[in-house]
Amino acid sequence: MNKKVLSYIIDNNLIKSGDKILVAFSGGPDSLCLLNILQELKNELNIEIGAAHLNHLLRGEDAFKDEEFVINICKEKNIPCYVKRVDINKYSKENKLSSELAGRNVRYDFFDEILKKEGFNKIATAHNANDQAETIIFRLMRGTGLEGLSGIKVSRDNKIIRPILCLSRREVEKYIEEKDLNPRIDKTNFEKIYNRNKIRLDIIPYIQDNFNKDIVKTLNRMSLLIQKDNAFIERFSIKVYNEYCKKDNDSKIFILDKKLFKEDEAIVTRVIRNALTDYSQSHYDFEMKHIYDILELSKKETGKIIDLPKNISVENIYGDIKISSRSKENIIYDKREIAINKKEIGKEKINFSNYEFIMSILNNQSNKSLNLKESNLVKYFDLDKIRENVLFRTRKNGDKIIPLGMRGQKKLKDIFINMKIPKESRDLIPLICFDDEIAWIVGLKISDSFKVTNNSKNILKIVAKRKE
Amino acid sequence: MNKKVLSYIIDNNLIKSGDKILVAFSGGPDSLCLLNILQELKNELNIEIGAAHLNHLLRGEDAFKDEEFVINICKEKNIPCYVKRVDINKYSKENKLSSELAGRNVRYDFFDEILKKEGFNKIATAHNANDQAETIIFRLMRGTGLEGLSGIKVSRDNKIIRPILCLSRREVEKYIEEKDLNPRIDKTNFEKIYNRNKIRLDIIPYIQDNFNKDIVKTLNRMSLLIQKDNAFIERFSIKVYNEYCKKDNDSKIFILDKKLFKEDEAIVTRVIRNALTDYSQSHYDFEMKHIYDILELSKKETGKIIDLPKNISVENIYGDIKISSRSKENIIYDKREIAINKKEIGKEKINFSNYEFIMSILNNQSNKSLNLKESNLVKYFDLDKIRENVLFRTRKNGDKIIPLGMRGQKKLKDIFINMKIPKESRDLIPLICFDDEIAWIVGLKISDSFKVTNNSKNILKIVAKRKE
Repeated sequence: MNKKVLSYIIDNNLIKSGDKILVAFSGGPDSLCLLNILQELKNELNIEIGAAHLNHLLRGEDAFKDEEFVINICKEKNIPCYVKRVDINKYSKENKLSSELAGRNVRYDFFDEILKKEGFNKIATAHNANDQAETIIFRLMRGTGLEGLSGIKVSRDNKIIRPILCLSRREVEKYIEEKDLNPRIDKTNFEKIYNRNKIRLDIIPYIQDNFNKDIVKTLNRMSLLIQKDNAFIERFSIKVYNEYCKKDNDSKIFILDKKLFKEDEAIVTRVIRNALTDYSQSHYDFEMKHIYDILELSKKETGKIIDLPKNISVENIYGDIKISSRSKENIIYDKREIAINKKEIGKEKINFSNYEFIMSILNNQSNKSLNLKESNLVKYFDLDKIRENVLFRTRKNGDKIIPLGMRGQKKLKDIFINMKIPKESRDLIPLICFDDEIAWIVGLKISDSFKVTNNSKNILKIVAKRKE
Repeated sequence: MNKKVLSYIIDNNLIKSGDKILVAFSGGPDSLCLLNILQELKNELNIEIGAAHLNHLLRGEDAFKDEEFVINICKEKNIPCYVKRVDINKYSKENKLSSELAGRNVRYDFFDEILKKEGFNKIATAHNANDQAETIIFRLMRGTGLEGLSGIKVSRDNKIIRPILCLSRREVEKYIEEKDLNPRIDKTNFEKIYNRNKIRLDIIPYIQDNFNKDIVKTLNRMSLLIQKDNAFIERFSIKVYNEYCKKDNDSKIFILDKKLFKEDEAIVTRVIRNALTDYSQSHYDFEMKHIYDILELSKKETGKIIDLPKNISVENIYGDIKISSRSKENIIYDKREIAINKKEIGKEKINFSNYEFIMSILNNQSNKSLNLKESNLVKYFDLDKIRENVLFRTRKNGDKIIPLGMRGQKKLKDIFINMKIPKESRDLIPLICFDDEIAWIVGLKISDSFKVTNNSKNILKIVAKRKE
């Protein structure tokens, strides 16, 4: 067994001479096996090892017995041992996290703390080949991509290593038996035991009986291949990201160069995701939909803007993509209603919400065929259909419009939902009404009621300019 | 439904105006649905369609009823129809293929024939979203990589297209019902029905009930993502392949430039596979093991050679990798035994098997510490341990050697098996014996019996040069 683990360590370049390795030691069979093997390979590998145990205070008396066990084992083996107690229930409530995620956060914070204080440079965790197969099957059923299919990484950032990922659960059990070790048996852990057990007890045995008795090995082999493919694509994407993503000095604006969009879709989508994650400085999981929205935006005309979650605004600027913030400091929630008398049109620019509006009147007395250059932010209307006023306001409950080309009225609410405008953005969108009817939901739709026809004599042109 | 398929066609760029599309039409629900939808979209897409049906003569009367049904439907719809009858059982026996593979080969040959004769430019097949999910689960269980996880391709080589891959089996059935179509029900097809049914009737329902009721959609979404990742890696690999793989005029020798091996492993392994497939001009599925053997070889010393299946020989030449043939014309199966008297050593070069051997004697009377530059094909022996003869021969039953560093004898057969030397290569390997004991299995192992020690006075140097 030691030999197998040793060649896995060498093949995957997990450990080098002089490493100081902290073993995450729960006291269960896997981590006991890992600790034992590393201890036995210690001289051959020329490493130092230590053990860290977090008491999650979750399982009453059992948790303290685990802690005691861990301390005794380390004393026996003369391994430095670091123990900490954290009330994970309390922590998860305070931080609004699942106990699973809370446990992981606290554990890794604790490990990092020891790394710094005690001069360790690597953390070894005790995932085995069955954990790997179960993880892959679980992700596959829930929905995943290349990253997810890579499964548990053999090593991450040259800091976290998994030396017994090559051993099956049965091999670990055999080792424990042969060495006459007496691990603590976890009665719960922080994974979703219920789903995990279904995979372990139903799905994998079914596959073994009906399709492939070596399914665990098969999936582990696949994961190693996919990890390499994924690593390549990720490295390549980061190279492209650094080439085509420019930031201003204080990283408040990112520009994705238009040349980016000539790269392969597999790369472009990853670069966009990197940009969004990097820009928002959060682990918010942007959906593929948002990424494809930006891809689409890059093919649209300049000036077009879409809003994303996390207060992100994305704009097409002559093919480049600008990512900036709709952060509340810059945003004006305009509560005013500005009415402009028909006779005053064109005399002044109107500042409303986050836009500047310029209105002008064109004459088409000669009845020539019209060649009006419109865009998302430049629209034309039949001036003669306005009785008195042009009104600038934002939405109210019950607002309706007859969208261009349709006959019936539609609720603005439904339009916003259909066009996937985030709730927090809806109060920012200016509505331009002629008398008491909505003529333009700026940037989105115009009304059929005021459209320009061949019979229109006087045409109102409105240009909206988004303010920075 | 038409709308859904139309936008799938547009999103994936499957059809362009003017295409002439041949529908693979079995008469079953899926292909009937596909034919019907394409017929209804015909004008909108500005395409022509035809139908092709291969009667496999496998299901007695039923096969002829299918054929009749297909012909009638096409007559009704005024669609040109091409039918051919092939005895697949006979064909599969004659060509030693599974009836599954035989059916596929004959079908696609038939389609290609019609494409050429009748001016069609695309073939449409009727795989649906459930077929996709089942294919992915099947491959995953059997073992696969990125290519396999991509599943059924939406389109291949801009020639084979799958326009209803976006429809679930239920949607196809609903369509058939609504349109009051009466498809033929396949009682068998050329897929492994048994496994397929287990996935369809056991695995997918289990996942739907316990994990994810949208599993079919989930896997289809994954497959689209993976297809893009796979396409990128494949394109990139081909670029690298063209850059670093040089061929001689008649493609009898391929050289992989040493610079290749600095690329990412994901790319290097694909380039090696391409080179092997391209060189052997066969669809032989080289194992990952062979590919890693070549990767390893690239790190070894110049002159080292490994043998692969399909008569391929791979050699390290100063870090470059040369792929060439061990084809029988060039290979000498040397049946001779050449004995050289100890006194004659060094007088002549010895030509034996596919090598030329040069022997020379070094003196170490001064007892200086030795600095012998050895390699796979350059070895040193203690001359004084030879009584009379140096003998060149190839293997015989029962041959044994005491490998360097070991005490006991090992069978050559076991050594060949352990070192994974293909059977057909074993008779080519020269054995150099001193008197009646094997001293060198050329290129592989030397004997412990004749090793050079600090006490050796006279040293025999043997250089083996592989002949082109």
